Amino acid sequence: MAERLVLSIDGMGGDHAPEIVIEGMQIAAQRLPHLSFLVHGDEAKLAPLLTANAAARAVSEVRHTEAHIGMEVKPSQALRQGRGSSMWNAIAAVEEGQARAIVSAGNTGALMAISMIRLRMVQGVHRPALAARWPAASGGYVVLLDVGANVEADGQQLVEFAIMGEAFQRAVSGKARPSVALLNVGAEDQKGHEEIKGAARLIRAAGVEMDFRGFAEGDDIAKGTFDVIVTDGFTGNIALKSGEGAARLVAGLLREALTSSLMAKLGALIAYPALKKLRQRMDPSNFNGAVFLGLNGLVVKSHGGTNAMGFAAAIEVAALMAQSHYREEIASNLARLGSAQAPAAQQQDAG
Amino acid sequence: MAERLVLSIDGMGGDHAPEIVIEGMQIAAQRLPHLSFLVHGDEAKLAPLLTANAAARAVSEVRHTEAHIGMEVKPSQALRQGRGSSMWNAIAAVEEGQARAIVSAGNTGALMAISMIRLRMVQGVHRPALAARWPAASGGYVVLLDVGANVEADGQQLVEFAIMGEAFQRAVSGKARPSVALLNVGAEDQKGHEEIKGAARLIRAAGVEMDFRGFAEGDDIAKGTFDVIVTDGFTGNIALKSGEGAARLVAGLLREALTSSLMAKLGALIAYPALKKLRQRMDPSNFNGAVFLGLNGLVVKSHGGTNAMGFAAAIEVAALMAQSHYREEIASNLARLGSAQAPAAQQQDAG
Repeated sequence: MAERLVLSIDGMGGDHAPEIVIEGMQIAAQRLPHLSFLVHGDEAKLAPLLTANAAARAVSEVRHTEAHIGMEVKPSQALRQGRGSSMWNAIAAVEEGQARAIVSAGNTGALMAISMIRLRMVQGVHRPALAARWPAASGGYVVLLDVGANVEADGQQLVEFAIMGEAFQRAVSGKARPSVALLNVGAEDQKGHEEIKGAARLIRAAGVEMDFRGFAEGDDIAKGTFDVIVTDGFTGNIALKSGEGAARLVAGLLREALTSSLMAKLGALIAYPALKKLRQRMDPSNFNGAVFLGLNGLVVKSHGGTNAMGFAAAIEVAALMAQSHYREEIASNLARLGSAQAPAAQQQDAG
Repeated sequence: MAERLVLSIDGMGGDHAPEIVIEGMQIAAQRLPHLSFLVHGDEAKLAPLLTANAAARAVSEVRHTEAHIGMEVKPSQALRQGRGSSMWNAIAAVEEGQARAIVSAGNTGALMAISMIRLRMVQGVHRPALAARWPAASGGYVVLLDVGANVEADGQQLVEFAIMGEAFQRAVSGKARPSVALLNVGAEDQKGHEEIKGAARLIRAAGVEMDFRGFAEGDDIAKGTFDVIVTDGFTGNIALKSGEGAARLVAGLLREALTSSLMAKLGALIAYPALKKLRQRMDPSNFNGAVFLGLNGLVVKSHGGTNAMGFAAAIEVAALMAQSHYREEIASNLARLGSAQAPAAQQQDAG
């Protein structure tokens, strides 16, 4: 029998926990029969849900916790008071080697703060990054990072993000050689912030092993021009939310249009199978599961408001990452970057 | 007879000039009979187009130019070699008081560089900003600025952008008291860059006269939560293009879905009037016409690839701005900001 892949689940995190968490585990367990779960949370609440979801129950072990961290708790508060909560213990299980990844739909700031303290950063990474997936016109999806772990990033950090994002795209999509670009306000070399121009020079100078294509613009995200688009967490968060907002706007206006008259309703009814396929393709659940990259341990953040399908997608991301060569790949590229940086730093000291 | 409003038109700027320029003038002249145009460009090309568009011809005076600035010319090159071109002369007509505003679909960088040199900045403004409009779910539109005039902005400049954007929204939409927010990665006061937090403090401390609401997130742009959203030109450009890309993605997938089968095509045919209304509502032409704010003279930038309807919309923006109290309004708010800044600067010098 093949080795089971154990994932650690924050049973109490998210707007609709624990219900959608257990239902998401049920879907994931049916799709990926080699998974097992350590579920952290209130046993009295989890037990009846597991009873109703037999596939999840068959591969789950519940670890009871009394407390859980609310969605409004600040990171500093979570660090002081979060010990023993479902999120904390779920992360600790990864730290202690009992599970290969944690999946949580809970408080993003708390998840990041506790993960950084407990799991610490991979050697050679200065700051972790949050990587999200976005559906592309070309099919498949684009990896966008950082979407909010840090508000700023210097050139060196952007290169680290590029290295991690490229390995993430490969781990999850199976693309052998994802293309990578830096998000900018124009494709020309002289445009943009000094940090971005520095990052482009550094990727080329360091001989980082990737298909680096230069600069991307905002509309390249949805176009799918590149497989990985790299930016700082401030810009990435705003780009992602601007895109989500615009997509929701068009979808909402479409819904409004197709219910605006009897004829419109009739047309929509006749076109229903095609419209349903469209809705499925754009469903955010498909792309749920952002990953904190750069930590000694896999941390997957599900959207707080997701449904069971979305939570299952986040579990799948965790499984794909855990089975991949992500760690070895980023280690070798970070080493290239480190050796390119060392002489540059000496030069700077001398200059 | 009421005084005519004279606008200066770059007849040769844009991907489809001079055709769509003259056709756009025709539409605008029919809608707004008090307009007159000074059209700068190649008379041999403009004359037959004006003959075909009688309403535009009746209110136009052609100013012949031999040269025009190509879309790929760099700003520095445009400054050195652009003198005597259609764009240059169109701007000069505003500088010399012959026209109240210039409208160009030409090279953005060149338009900005020449405008800054010829028209100079309004007293109290450190950098101009490019303001764009975005359709909002709530109806109407959101003003987003800066969308690309500068890659960076400090707190003081963000406040200047807020002052100019608020007056722009009022001038164009007629809203008496537009709400204003700063684009950020969260609504909480402790989040975001130091520049943004400083701008929020400064707006409150300076007693700037506006309905300031604090922070907006990326999805607030399309939601229309606020009337004016303020950010630096790097972030604004990326937010705008990310949103445009996402909207185009959904529209493209919808088109694909509604042509994917015979039933889908039939449904789309029956729902055609409603779908047509949707398309009209989302048509970028409606929102064409970005404005360079902060110069001694009105400069309206039409999208380079726009159609005649879009160019007419840009002309309308120029007319509304020219008829408004925009200049007086920003002058009084900039004065408030100036007096709040003076003691702060002294304090800083002493500290």
